[in-house]
Amino acid sequence: MWGCVTDFFTYETTKSVVVKSWSVGIINRIVQGFIIAYFVGWVFIHEKAYQVIDTGIESSVMTKVKGFGYHHGRVMDVADYVYPPQGAGVFCIITKLIITENQYQGRCAETIRKFNCSTDKDCQKHFDSILTNGAVTGTCLQDSGMCEIDGWCPAEDDDVQVAPMLDVENFTIFIKNSIRFPLFNVTRGNFPSTMTAAEIKRCTYHPEDRPFCPIFRVSDILNYTGQTVQSLAEKGGEIGINIQWKCNLDLNIKHCVPHYSFTRLDAPFEKNAISKGYNFRFAKYFKTENGTEFRTLHKAYAIRFDVMVTGNAGKFDTIPTLINLVAAFTSIGLGTVLCDIILLNFLKGADQYKAKKFEEVSDAQIEASLTQSPGSQLSLKPGIKSSYDSGAISLTTSDQAM
Amino acid sequence: MWGCVTDFFTYETTKSVVVKSWSVGIINRIVQGFIIAYFVGWVFIHEKAYQVIDTGIESSVMTKVKGFGYHHGRVMDVADYVYPPQGAGVFCIITKLIITENQYQGRCAETIRKFNCSTDKDCQKHFDSILTNGAVTGTCLQDSGMCEIDGWCPAEDDDVQVAPMLDVENFTIFIKNSIRFPLFNVTRGNFPSTMTAAEIKRCTYHPEDRPFCPIFRVSDILNYTGQTVQSLAEKGGEIGINIQWKCNLDLNIKHCVPHYSFTRLDAPFEKNAISKGYNFRFAKYFKTENGTEFRTLHKAYAIRFDVMVTGNAGKFDTIPTLINLVAAFTSIGLGTVLCDIILLNFLKGADQYKAKKFEEVSDAQIEASLTQSPGSQLSLKPGIKSSYDSGAISLTTSDQAM
Amino acid sequence: MWGCVTDFFTYETTKSVVVKSWSVGIINRIVQGFIIAYFVGWVFIHEKAYQVIDTGIESSVMTKVKGFGYHHGRVMDVADYVYPPQGAGVFCIITKLIITENQYQGRCAETIRKFNCSTDKDCQKHFDSILTNGAVTGTCLQDSGMCEIDGWCPAEDDDVQVAPMLDVENFTIFIKNSIRFPLFNVTRGNFPSTMTAAEIKRCTYHPEDRPFCPIFRVSDILNYTGQTVQSLAEKGGEIGINIQWKCNLDLNIKHCVPHYSFTRLDAPFEKNAISKGYNFRFAKYFKTENGTEFRTLHKAYAIRFDVMVTGNAGKFDTIPTLINLVAAFTSIGLGTVLCDIILLNFLKGADQYKAKKFEEVSDAQIEASLTQSPGSQLSLKPGIKSSYDSGAISLTTSDQAM
Repeated sequence: MWGCVTDFFTYETTKSVVVKSWSVGIINRIVQGFIIAYFVGWVFIHEKAYQVIDTGIESSVMTKVKGFGYHHGRVMDVADYVYPPQGAGVFCIITKLIITENQYQGRCAETIRKFNCSTDKDCQKHFDSILTNGAVTGTCLQDSGMCEIDGWCPAEDDDVQVAPMLDVENFTIFIKNSIRFPLFNVTRGNFPSTMTAAEIKRCTYHPEDRPFCPIFRVSDILNYTGQTVQSLAEKGGEIGINIQWKCNLDLNIKHCVPHYSFTRLDAPFEKNAISKGYNFRFAKYFKTENGTEFRTLHKAYAIRFDVMVTGNAGKFDTIPTLINLVAAFTSIGLGTVLCDIILLNFLKGADQYKAKKFEEVSDAQIEASLTQSPGSQLSLKPGIKSSYDSGAISLTTSDQAM
Repeated sequence: MWGCVTDFFTYETTKSVVVKSWSVGIINRIVQGFIIAYFVGWVFIHEKAYQVIDTGIESSVMTKVKGFGYHHGRVMDVADYVYPPQGAGVFCIITKLIITENQYQGRCAETIRKFNCSTDKDCQKHFDSILTNGAVTGTCLQDSGMCEIDGWCPAEDDDVQVAPMLDVENFTIFIKNSIRFPLFNVTRGNFPSTMTAAEIKRCTYHPEDRPFCPIFRVSDILNYTGQTVQSLAEKGGEIGINIQWKCNLDLNIKHCVPHYSFTRLDAPFEKNAISKGYNFRFAKYFKTENGTEFRTLHKAYAIRFDVMVTGNAGKFDTIPTLINLVAAFTSIGLGTVLCDIILLNFLKGADQYKAKKFEEVSDAQIEASLTQSPGSQLSLKPGIKSSYDSGAISLTTSDQAM
Repeated sequence: MWGCVTDFFTYETTKSVVVKSWSVGIINRIVQGFIIAYFVGWVFIHEKAYQVIDTGIESSVMTKVKGFGYHHGRVMDVADYVYPPQGAGVFCIITKLIITENQYQGRCAETIRKFNCSTDKDCQKHFDSILTNGAVTGTCLQDSGMCEIDGWCPAEDDDVQVAPMLDVENFTIFIKNSIRFPLFNVTRGNFPSTMTAAEIKRCTYHPEDRPFCPIFRVSDILNYTGQTVQSLAEKGGEIGINIQWKCNLDLNIKHCVPHYSFTRLDAPFEKNAISKGYNFRFAKYFKTENGTEFRTLHKAYAIRFDVMVTGNAGKFDTIPTLINLVAAFTSIGLGTVLCDIILLNFLKGADQYKAKKFEEVSDAQIEASLTQSPGSQLSLKPGIKSSYDSGAISLTTSDQAM
């Protein structure tokens, strides 16, 4: 029993060969130096491996657009051109409207060129088309030379030229973004609480001069993405406003600030022949005195803004620090692999080094010693102790085999 | 000083025992072969451990529905049945409307069965109910046998049979999805830029034949999820359109393409007795000539489509490649653990192998040599060099202890 | 050829020194014990390193608000105060409305104090202001002492006192959340399928008593976040409803249940002087008999609810189990680093231990043996075999160097 305990509290360490050779010694230390430099410089300082990272950022975005412009000879204000109105992270600013007023349910001529006709037959082949403005009745209206449809009449004709509302470039967007890192229970807002109401009202975002001002001019945003107001207002488009939070919570919390960047989101489709820009249709509904519903159809070309919030936060924690320290210590030993290859193959006296490093024992020896006196003291002659090869590290084995 | 430098530039390598035994040798190589195969086959080829991965995909979705259908004897087009209209990634197609026209603020009879009454007392117990269509006044209206409410009148009666708009199955959904991997600054669209306008207009998505066509028929989508138009149009439901981007940026960028899949999102509630389907209420507001506001209340049953974009991109990078190569090299050495257990316990001549592998040194010996002549040459007899046990690897230690 | 094969099937294991010393032995076992405890307790049991984790949770949220309240002497129901109406995961409950009725396009006096005037010049300096309710014409209206604007008239005056709709505290929010873990193809709903319709209709969420009831009272939610109905209804605000799914799929699937938590999202801005609360503007459009469009502008103060779904699921998998077992086995060996430092530096007889652990071979010896008889048996005298230092582990090297 006591022997068992004695045997348990032993310590086993590898027997090592210390090679006092300048060439391998220097290579060994250089390799170890590289490994240490990698861990200190890259893993610990650059990648901050001593931190635990929270990537599950919770974010809430509120936006508010200000400004007004002239369109169709009328003043459009926020309630007219922002859709949806509730100030979400994704919203559109309508820059051009094609308005079809006073549509009633009924029958009228199609306006899309493709559906012209000379006889009813021309129309009947379009019976199951869904590209019309309403259900094709199968009648060809002779006075217009177009097929008759059943639906909201008169049908929309979106092939008209309307000047877009270029005033959009003077509009400003106020973005209120609050984030939370649930792991550390840290909440932050996108502008410092020291900013006074007056400061916020006056300022406009500028990447260098006023990087924390939460008010953005539309023309500035378009400039940062390399777009012009003219092209976007005419055809519509999608702009991404990316708010990036990279927080090192080991530093003062006031260094945890947002960084803004801007991209045109529909850029991959610029080369496409179809579906450039961004537009959608909506209707306003009215009732006549006698209760008949009618509507005004709007085809809206709009600039859509997507506020996207990304980020992560890191804070010192013992667990990742320990894990990476262990990894570092283990890795320092890896220089041995390279040095062994050099020592045992390319150095003068490689065979002598092999003889020192490897001791050989073979089945034959074991059998021999067992037949002599099983359990007796092992008496291998020192002469056969040395092996010239390990098979794993030595590169040229076969010709050197005994 | 020079001695210090000399001592520093030394190289320390472990002293090894090479066992020339077929049984352990073969096991050793097989284990190493498995480890190499695991790293080459799984870690490097399958898991692509040589790549750095960007999971922070930025995505922008634009949708456009086309088609029209008959409902309540009227033609409904996009502006009527798509909500919200702005073509976002989440949108509803209204398939059934229960319309309550011309509601004015006032007092009228409740329509919900639960609030029937014979005396005012029956109603007064419902004073704080929020399940009514308006505030209970406490009066029982004798002609209808229902409690009187204060609110929009007449109250909605949603217990009516309305035929849903089954034409929805012919509608098409056009999805424009542009993504960006910020780490690599790669942007992609969900259809190739070589597709002409004519091709896009004509095509319909098919998993095998036209996997990159961005136009989806509603009936196809419902089929892929195993749903029928009838059930969904009647009760409403939620359909997920998942766009998955798995990009290997070491290959040509044109292989970075989307993969579509479809699921019914409210599937977990199919067994529930309550809240099947999907519906919501909205109102259109009107004014009479004399300025009184009235409204038309709509209870809309709709199919909601959620376009969800997921994905990641990988690209060769030296850092993860190095880390995993190091891990691979380290792991090859781990075969030793298994082989040592076999060698030192189960093999014929295990004791002899132990004698070769372990050298023993004990406190007693050290003490003895220290008392003889401290600092002198160590002269341990070779006979006591061998230990039969390491404690860590040998499984049956106690009975073999010296 | 045969020799080559024989050489290949060899097994190389490190030669070890077993130190039978109580002090180092105990330290060794304690360190190993800590490492094993860390892996078993933390890595495997707490962090569940034997599982593969799916963090790509797919979620779909449907909400439905119930209740009605009095505002401006009128009953407001769901269709009036919920925006957007389609029951998405993000929605607003309007608690206060500042209504500007019957706005027509035209010219009228500005209402914002800042734009008061005595002469036209006072107004002309505001020509490019975007903070007005319309375009400044440059005329000073003498009767009101304000600048004239061109836009929707009369201009909104939002500096009025309106009592908010405090009935909001009795409203209930029904949340239907279905999630899916694509990796395991597991779908779950946020209330058990065994819940009957009656049970769901009656219940209200309570963290301890009814944690799976999907119906939430607004006043409860505000309480959990430490807010009062009065302050939020007056100024508006943003409330986050976080649904967290942490599923261990090795257990019965019925343990995969949601956990709700509530936060005030705009908390970081509470100290800010500006932009407290949450409000937005929207308009209802009407037409007169002769076709002139007019509108009612609403400035809506609202409580915005963001239902945010997060979560992950884990399930046993052989790959991570193997990787972490290997890591555990490798790490057990790391105790050696600490023990070697103690053994070779601080223990009595450290030099003797060094002599046992390290064998020394130097360039000089190799050269000597090479000149004697190249390729002959190496005959290093045992006396020079021992080295007192490895350079890597020994802390006080120079003074002990030979």
